[in-house]
Amino acid sequence: MFVDEDNITDLAVQRWASAHSPRSGELMTALVRHLHAFAREVGLSEDEWMTAINWLTRAGQLSDEKRQELILASDVLGLSMLVVQLNNRFEAQATPATVLGPFHIDGSPTVPHGFDMSDGIPGTPLFITGTVTDTEGRPVPHAVLDVWQADADGAYEAQLPEIDEARLRAKYRAREDGSYCVRTLVPRGYAIPMDGPVGDLIRGTDISHYRPAHVHFLIEEPGHRRLITHLFQEGGEFLDSDVVFGTKDALIVPFTERQAGIAPDGRRLDKPYLHAQFDFVLQRS
Amino acid sequence: MFVDEDNITDLAVQRWASAHSPRSGELMTALVRHLHAFAREVGLSEDEWMTAINWLTRAGQLSDEKRQELILASDVLGLSMLVVQLNNRFEAQATPATVLGPFHIDGSPTVPHGFDMSDGIPGTPLFITGTVTDTEGRPVPHAVLDVWQADADGAYEAQLPEIDEARLRAKYRAREDGSYCVRTLVPRGYAIPMDGPVGDLIRGTDISHYRPAHVHFLIEEPGHRRLITHLFQEGGEFLDSDVVFGTKDALIVPFTERQAGIAPDGRRLDKPYLHAQFDFVLQRS
Repeated sequence: MFVDEDNITDLAVQRWASAHSPRSGELMTALVRHLHAFAREVGLSEDEWMTAINWLTRAGQLSDEKRQELILASDVLGLSMLVVQLNNRFEAQATPATVLGPFHIDGSPTVPHGFDMSDGIPGTPLFITGTVTDTEGRPVPHAVLDVWQADADGAYEAQLPEIDEARLRAKYRAREDGSYCVRTLVPRGYAIPMDGPVGDLIRGTDISHYRPAHVHFLIEEPGHRRLITHLFQEGGEFLDSDVVFGTKDALIVPFTERQAGIAPDGRRLDKPYLHAQFDFVLQRS
Repeated sequence: MFVDEDNITDLAVQRWASAHSPRSGELMTALVRHLHAFAREVGLSEDEWMTAINWLTRAGQLSDEKRQELILASDVLGLSMLVVQLNNRFEAQATPATVLGPFHIDGSPTVPHGFDMSDGIPGTPLFITGTVTDTEGRPVPHAVLDVWQADADGAYEAQLPEIDEARLRAKYRAREDGSYCVRTLVPRGYAIPMDGPVGDLIRGTDISHYRPAHVHFLIEEPGHRRLITHLFQEGGEFLDSDVVFGTKDALIVPFTERQAGIAPDGRRLDKPYLHAQFDFVLQRS
């Protein structure tokens, strides 16, 4: 049986339904149906199809261990945030999840309570303190808080050449009472990379290519759902136009100005700093 | 306004609707809707999403001037053939189009009527002769027939390392009466490349990874629609299971056995050969 415009989708669905794993069959047949529905709806031209092939090829080729243009593409299309929502339907009391983003680096060093992960990099000191509890208010001792962020210029380690040790990233652990203390610097809102195929798409629209200032957290402890989230600086720019759709009301936190003196880590700090207080609430698994 | 599972698709559609070109807005908003509908329908997990990101990245990285894994992916999902159908709705008398495939190389040499493009490569000689006319039977003189194919082992030039001149590809021109004569060798049905991410997908199904034996044609002449098609060898293997959905009844042609003697190019041939006769009919533009 040979193809025509009417039967091609059914034929392709039939073939991919032969996948040995039922889940693969479900994924591939749905992918075929939705891809074909897209092409039919827009009447995709051969030039547009070729442009899409070249776009994807370039996005793949630009990606490496430190840059992931295809994650960025998924982010700006709202797909990443949708997948986050579908997979993290937490109870209302739990801290909501947001996107991982393309700049997480595995294997950050484990550091002590209050450790300064900004380690001499220029910027205003920022302390983030609070607790990690479950939805019933019980502390989650030893929870690992993997923290990463951009610097005061909006640049992540992953975007800087020739960095050979962890920069603005570290793993903290909650203490017995669930408390944690991160010392870092105040991050800045930043532009996503605009020199690749994602930038080419965004430039053809009125979409803002900025993200509001934030610090990333990935919090894990056995018995609880993994929480991937950000804390955003209240009053910062771009909160309403986050290019990756990652901002949530519950994640916006005041970064309060404090004078020099005894800092939240219990040590003396000779200059002003900011202090954010946030209690993470994990859903039990 | 911040996102949740319910409003993320509408928010993303609103943003991409700001595209400066109306067609880009149409394409991008439809892409967002269909991508999101796919993710919602299958309940895409975060691991599956990451697998897809890595799959696309690897496909992009494996592609270069001679190999295009993303075209192959589009082919095996039936998307390429659908796009061909959507864009080549010819009259019933016209020769139907089929997929370009990933192995076309631009800039093949222009050669004279009857030229042997197999040029000493081992295989059974094959003559393909006929005419190029329009749908009213009028010859289309000077039409360029860009011809390419796999060798008797099923390998294209694009798949062979270190080929620095055209191999099994050439551009012929129809004569004043519309007639053309290609001399080549009998191609073989072949497996698509199975060492990349497309192969990984196919191996998880019962899908045959073969294409039936065929010769590619790209025929162009001003005033007529460009025709991209194949001729398939009647009676060959895999006609019913072409992995890229490219086979059409009207493109299956007998490759008739002929004894040594005066060949279709008017010259003496001292060994048996095959002869395919096919009249291409171009739609006027």
